[in-house]
Amino acid sequence: MRLPFTLLIDPVPADSLQQDFADTFHEMDSSAPALRVGELSTQRGDGIFETLAVVNGHPQEVGPHISRLRNSARICELPLPNAEQWRAAIAYAVERIPQRGEIALKFVLSRGVEHGPAPTAWLHAVAAADFSVVRGNGVRVITLDRGYPRGVAEKAPWLLMGAKTLSYAVNMAALREARRRGADDTIFLTTDGFVMEGPTSSVVLRINGEYVTPAPSGAILHGTTQQSMFDYLRTQGMVVEYRDVTVEELRQADAAWLVSSVRLAVSVVALDGEPFPADQTLTETLNKYLLARTT
Amino acid sequence: MRLPFTLLIDPVPADSLQQDFADTFHEMDSSAPALRVGELSTQRGDGIFETLAVVNGHPQEVGPHISRLRNSARICELPLPNAEQWRAAIAYAVERIPQRGEIALKFVLSRGVEHGPAPTAWLHAVAAADFSVVRGNGVRVITLDRGYPRGVAEKAPWLLMGAKTLSYAVNMAALREARRRGADDTIFLTTDGFVMEGPTSSVVLRINGEYVTPAPSGAILHGTTQQSMFDYLRTQGMVVEYRDVTVEELRQADAAWLVSSVRLAVSVVALDGEPFPADQTLTETLNKYLLARTT
Repeated sequence: MRLPFTLLIDPVPADSLQQDFADTFHEMDSSAPALRVGELSTQRGDGIFETLAVVNGHPQEVGPHISRLRNSARICELPLPNAEQWRAAIAYAVERIPQRGEIALKFVLSRGVEHGPAPTAWLHAVAAADFSVVRGNGVRVITLDRGYPRGVAEKAPWLLMGAKTLSYAVNMAALREARRRGADDTIFLTTDGFVMEGPTSSVVLRINGEYVTPAPSGAILHGTTQQSMFDYLRTQGMVVEYRDVTVEELRQADAAWLVSSVRLAVSVVALDGEPFPADQTLTETLNKYLLARTT
Repeated sequence: MRLPFTLLIDPVPADSLQQDFADTFHEMDSSAPALRVGELSTQRGDGIFETLAVVNGHPQEVGPHISRLRNSARICELPLPNAEQWRAAIAYAVERIPQRGEIALKFVLSRGVEHGPAPTAWLHAVAAADFSVVRGNGVRVITLDRGYPRGVAEKAPWLLMGAKTLSYAVNMAALREARRRGADDTIFLTTDGFVMEGPTSSVVLRINGEYVTPAPSGAILHGTTQQSMFDYLRTQGMVVEYRDVTVEELRQADAAWLVSSVRLAVSVVALDGEPFPADQTLTETLNKYLLARTT
């Protein structure tokens, strides 16, 4: 029952009939070196990952995260992850970490060591940062050009858009640019002015009372928590929609949220330096719903 | 005198007056784990690197590689590398690796462990692959859209173009796409049809007897070996030029080379499935020159 918690995993093929995976899991001291310098994850950012929340001992959205990992593997031509093994690894970890509070559990599939055994995999759980302030107060957001025109992902699949790869240097640089401009986070736009996503979040807007998120495409990850948010809104009789969204629609929206697995839903309270309308009541309701899920 | 050779490095500030760095170097067994899973290099591809060749005990282009590492650090807002420490680390490694043959020496500066000591750094030397066949026979190349229009790097510095970051998943995917199409390597184009660079190389063309490479800009790395090639060509009285190059000029060039630190100069012998004129005599002369340098 301690954090950080690190588990090295020997990946088994997706079509393995193995049912007990305990001998493929190797618990590690998190402060000890675990990876060789020849790891392609570190040399080339060549691997894929997911981060899910564990809330009071319950891992959230396990199925959607594993599905997305498998989709990323297909795009990156990595060996397809064995869903049962990953489900077992997450369960194994969850039994060994604190059963109270919010925990971020990251799982990684790397192309492995250059010229060595491939792929390699691990799981790493840390205490989540305290997001109560941003959940309550919202975030100031800037828009940044992602450099790509809309539709490029379909024409150029080698750009790996739509895969959640370890090559996140640009995402991290976009967050630094936000801080430099006195903001907290970023919404990426295409060069032709369509809303994409945040560096580590999905974007949901309310436009004329309907909830809209940019259609997940080759270029936009399908947000696991955005899907949960839409599930909730549907139960409340709200209209939810996936479609293209322009930056002009963003600027005129009734409200907007950045939505992600561990921070959950946060209201956009400023956009490019201008105040932005927020619905903090709904944000609070959404986060209560997202935190309380036990199935 | 063995390979692989791994050296962990405690980075000292760029303005340190330290002259003896031996106590900042820690030799590692290359097959042993060296990095924690919390490393941002592996979690986020968040770090920078250089790879230089060591030929018969002589490290090539040390100054230009260290300069480029420092430039990458500026773009990525990493602590500026201490040039003297890196020079000393390379010398320390070169004394301890075989004095015959070709060796690839990679050096990495990572943003460090999340919430931990930052930055972290290491150096890793491996025997170079045998490139004699591609140096002799050339490479079949395809052009691929890099997804960005020309000029985007200047408008969107958070895209980190011009920095040699560890986020190389797209570069690796482009090489897989080349192999899928029966080719060996790739030349990236802007969406508006300008020649950029290869995933791990610079592009040099001969057009009407003059040697041309796309002007290094925010979007194109300044190739260390391309600079050495130009140095040589100047001594031969040739005209060399940095400028914008269109894909039409590439298709009609007299000859083209991919140029990089370890593979050195290789002729393009096919472009997008069509035979391409090659000057193997010059390629051979260039590689003899590049291999023989001892200063």
